Amino acid sequence: MAVYTQVSAEKAQALLRLYDVGSLVSLKGIAEGVENSNFLLETTQARFILTLYENRVDPDDLPYFHRLLAHLHEARCPVPRFIEDRKGQWLQDVAGRKACLIEFLPGISVSEPTEARAAAVGMALGQMHNALKSFTEIKPNPLGQASWRSLFGKCDAVATEQFQPGLSSRIERELDWLDANWPTDLPAVASHTDLFPDNVLFNGDRVGGLIDFYFACTELRAYDLAVTHAAWSFSNDGGSCNTEVGKALLDGYASCGELLAEERHALPVLARGASLRFLLTRLYDWINTPADAMVTRKDPLAFLKRLEYYSGVEGLGLFL
Amino acid sequence: MAVYTQVSAEKAQALLRLYDVGSLVSLKGIAEGVENSNFLLETTQARFILTLYENRVDPDDLPYFHRLLAHLHEARCPVPRFIEDRKGQWLQDVAGRKACLIEFLPGISVSEPTEARAAAVGMALGQMHNALKSFTEIKPNPLGQASWRSLFGKCDAVATEQFQPGLSSRIERELDWLDANWPTDLPAVASHTDLFPDNVLFNGDRVGGLIDFYFACTELRAYDLAVTHAAWSFSNDGGSCNTEVGKALLDGYASCGELLAEERHALPVLARGASLRFLLTRLYDWINTPADAMVTRKDPLAFLKRLEYYSGVEGLGLFL
Repeated sequence: MAVYTQVSAEKAQALLRLYDVGSLVSLKGIAEGVENSNFLLETTQARFILTLYENRVDPDDLPYFHRLLAHLHEARCPVPRFIEDRKGQWLQDVAGRKACLIEFLPGISVSEPTEARAAAVGMALGQMHNALKSFTEIKPNPLGQASWRSLFGKCDAVATEQFQPGLSSRIERELDWLDANWPTDLPAVASHTDLFPDNVLFNGDRVGGLIDFYFACTELRAYDLAVTHAAWSFSNDGGSCNTEVGKALLDGYASCGELLAEERHALPVLARGASLRFLLTRLYDWINTPADAMVTRKDPLAFLKRLEYYSGVEGLGLFL
Repeated sequence: MAVYTQVSAEKAQALLRLYDVGSLVSLKGIAEGVENSNFLLETTQARFILTLYENRVDPDDLPYFHRLLAHLHEARCPVPRFIEDRKGQWLQDVAGRKACLIEFLPGISVSEPTEARAAAVGMALGQMHNALKSFTEIKPNPLGQASWRSLFGKCDAVATEQFQPGLSSRIERELDWLDANWPTDLPAVASHTDLFPDNVLFNGDRVGGLIDFYFACTELRAYDLAVTHAAWSFSNDGGSCNTEVGKALLDGYASCGELLAEERHALPVLARGASLRFLLTRLYDWINTPADAMVTRKDPLAFLKRLEYYSGVEGLGLFL
């Protein structure tokens, strides 16, 4: 959530000379997205996002994201396009980083989802999964269920117990339970897997943009829906669940996409898995980020609370 | 250079309801300015900068900055205006911070000043000083010449020597020399005192905006010119001086503003002072910022090099 690499106006002007998109009018570093450097770049013709890829995104994955977004754009899903230069290149080198010029989509990210907006997000996700049935490229999920035990193994055991006594055994128990209960025979499709409110742009109650596809991979589509449920229907701290918002999300999804009975049946398990995935990545980041660093550390417990909710009596009724 | 306080779309919408400027279309945290949180806020009518004031700006100084910018705007200087709400209020409370909605000015900040742009900046600074002859309010400079010895006293002596052996005695010598040679009888006026390339927005070679007035105070106007000379006519690392760019700046200033013979005569002393001021504040920040913090520490030596240049034979010829 910061600008890691500076881009001078002169460098941006040199980049724009490769494109047919007008000349530079304004350039502002913006604080958003995963750990990339992002700039809002305005030309005499239009506005763009200039993204420089930092450590978190593997440049070898960029062609996959490019093909995925091109496919979605073709299918009229509201996603930003990578802009091609005069030679048809969409991947550039800027200030020592791989970089892309990306379509700017207007819209605001909400912090307090309403039912209307959750329904709209569900519809957009369903539409996206439908459109991706014809996108056959496979990219395994590096943060999928099979990875969670080894991810937990990288979290220092002492620090985990210091963070919250009893947390290690709770996670071990959940890992075992998920191993025993994880569904294997559900439809998989290219999925966003990180569709938090930050990554949806609204124009009023209408979804104007789904952004930040840098965790996209082949996953159970119902897992993508479960992640989105965990992301949208709880208070930030995980302390309370807005069941109506969650229901609106599912109804929206089912109305535009496809939700098989066996997928709906698996949602409680998938939602526990989604909670554990974010608990683990946040725990890892918490332990490995100095408390005085300028990045805001996200509280792992917000997802432990979701996990407990989904594991309890109330959770079982959520997806019926 | 980061966003310290988050503002949700909902909070921004609530703020906009006080104003008559349209409704929210887009909100992006931007990485610029002194240590404030800044957002590029777009409404159905226009674009604005939303600034939340963090620790570095004393809220009690904001009315001064407001009056100063209103005066400059009235005089057709290219500065951003504070926007007033329906009740005429320009100062708000947002997310626990004092906050202002400010006019957005398009334009780009250059990293490699040309003679044409340096001349344009000189003209804009001269025009500004002229316009401020009728702005009589006095605000002492908390980082003025009288403060430098005590500022150096706050820099840990051991850390200073570790940073660069011999630096302490060099600074002590300069403090003494400036005490003995600092001019006292030159015209003073409300001054920017931080007019680095970052703080000037260009449309082509034309100055479209002077921004970030949060160091503004009453100062010798020739000191403001000397700061601008030190900021514009050296390479970033201070290692080389572009004398033609410096000359264009001075000529531009003299053509639009007023540069008395005694002011021109004092410029070598004032430029040494300007160099020491930034050397000291950067040294203090360097010593007191952890190396692994996410803020980019600016190299103090870039201004030691300027100081040495201004103190040498070449420096004496710069301002003739």
